[in-house]
Amino acid sequence: MIPSRLELEAACSRVRPFVHRTPVLTSTLLNELAGAQLFFKCENFQKMGAFKMRGAVNAIEHLTAAQKEAGVVTHSSGNFAQAVSLAARNLGVKAYIVMPENAPSVKKAAVKDYGGIITVCESTLAAREAASQKIINETGATFLHPSNDLNVILGNATATAELMEEHTELDFVFAPVGGGGLIAGTALAAHHLSPKTKVIGGEPFAVDDAYRSLHSGKIETNATSDTIADGLRTQLGDVNFPIILQLVSEIIRVEEQEIVAALQLVWERLKIIIEPSCAVPVAALLRDKHRFQHKKIGIILSGGNIDVHNLPFGNLNKES
Amino acid sequence: MIPSRLELEAACSRVRPFVHRTPVLTSTLLNELAGAQLFFKCENFQKMGAFKMRGAVNAIEHLTAAQKEAGVVTHSSGNFAQAVSLAARNLGVKAYIVMPENAPSVKKAAVKDYGGIITVCESTLAAREAASQKIINETGATFLHPSNDLNVILGNATATAELMEEHTELDFVFAPVGGGGLIAGTALAAHHLSPKTKVIGGEPFAVDDAYRSLHSGKIETNATSDTIADGLRTQLGDVNFPIILQLVSEIIRVEEQEIVAALQLVWERLKIIIEPSCAVPVAALLRDKHRFQHKKIGIILSGGNIDVHNLPFGNLNKES
Repeated sequence: MIPSRLELEAACSRVRPFVHRTPVLTSTLLNELAGAQLFFKCENFQKMGAFKMRGAVNAIEHLTAAQKEAGVVTHSSGNFAQAVSLAARNLGVKAYIVMPENAPSVKKAAVKDYGGIITVCESTLAAREAASQKIINETGATFLHPSNDLNVILGNATATAELMEEHTELDFVFAPVGGGGLIAGTALAAHHLSPKTKVIGGEPFAVDDAYRSLHSGKIETNATSDTIADGLRTQLGDVNFPIILQLVSEIIRVEEQEIVAALQLVWERLKIIIEPSCAVPVAALLRDKHRFQHKKIGIILSGGNIDVHNLPFGNLNKES
Repeated sequence: MIPSRLELEAACSRVRPFVHRTPVLTSTLLNELAGAQLFFKCENFQKMGAFKMRGAVNAIEHLTAAQKEAGVVTHSSGNFAQAVSLAARNLGVKAYIVMPENAPSVKKAAVKDYGGIITVCESTLAAREAASQKIINETGATFLHPSNDLNVILGNATATAELMEEHTELDFVFAPVGGGGLIAGTALAAHHLSPKTKVIGGEPFAVDDAYRSLHSGKIETNATSDTIADGLRTQLGDVNFPIILQLVSEIIRVEEQEIVAALQLVWERLKIIIEPSCAVPVAALLRDKHRFQHKKIGIILSGGNIDVHNLPFGNLNKES
């Protein structure tokens, strides 16, 4: 069930030529604030602005020559659509992207800029799946799932593998939990490369399906998707959940205002742009910081794609 | 008139233990957009968030033991007040900061956090100077000017010295022009370390005193201070102007909307937080980019202190 260390190492070799080796930032001030030693793996500086590039590259590189010839297809309105578009272009593969008609025009423009071939459909899951199936039938393209795919998970794991190459003996690594692809990859890397390191997920209370799933032992679903962390509204899948169940130590849930406060803290103190989903593990650490005093902690900063015309700080200010 | 290479090297040794060696970032996308090879020296990641830390450290380190004992004083509502407060604290020196009563409370709080001893006065220059003089009379503290001081200029020069150590044979270095302390230091470093490199200043049209001064050969003043680049509203001084006149190749002026567009570009593409003044040299380069095709260009990103509750992007959006 758990991919081997050899498979992880193969993924690292496979993605290396096509991704940035992102920097690891530290901050004396944030260390003081947390009472711990923090190492921020900056996937917000990754190509197309998020860790998703890694999974997309690994999944496409894993295809046969014939499959590559036929292209890949995914339905997404977020970072994975951009990641598949750019990864496919850089690997000389066609990318068909199914996007709901109400997707923001900036996101459609980004996919188009990266060379993705867009099919617009109604904004229901059924319509997206039907549009994807139609493309598969017509072109023979391979469907790529953003988080419930072993090769995507292995690709995501390479961020933590890089972090652990540079910073050994981490006590903990924190990552956000959405569809489960990043936290599963993070836990997989820790399992093979630094088994003493505990992996902790950060998740909004509003969409705490992973927290509940980890406790019940089966995949739970969310009643709502009402969180500012728009990248974390998705559900776990049958491929990543067994890995999470076995290798993730715990999930810490956070309130919406804690996410915004962590977002602002990283912007103001690290002087880097991260997106709300990316602030969730920072918020989780700060919420329970008394438990992590003097520990050596890696934090996967997952991405930095945010619309600067629509930021949460103004609203926060008006509310307070 | 021009400080020697030896003085520059002494400044580098003096500030090194007290400042971050900030990273130099690159971006394939911004290179493509500019048609040039760009090297961003990230002083927004500097301690207290701006290059001003360098000048403050160098000026304070240059004092005699007796002067250090008596402390330092400055009047500023911006980054220099924070820089002097933090530099003085780290060097075991008292910092008296005169701030106008209408200074934003966040700026007062930052100065206080860094250990500065605040005196509030009326918001006229006369009141600030009177309050500073009173402190000097009472304490014997040494007055530090934010930009018109050779040791501040030499401290500022160390940012470019670091950049040139890592990236040789730059064709151009761009820096913003406000009070003149940064551009003078930048030109000084280039003069001694890479004489072929031309230094270009970026300045808002709204406060183009430096542009006009370079053309007239004497210090010109601004009729207004109406620019979003709040760090660049100040005037040149008799210490930095001769250096600028001799060593700066040219000054390129930019419109307000070009500053906001450059700000947004750096935020979205480099995923780092910079302040409006810091975007000015980026805007200057992009405005005249046809002249810089295929060149190797350093850009001093001066600082990242911006109030995230009051960003220009929303307004831009509403106007367009």
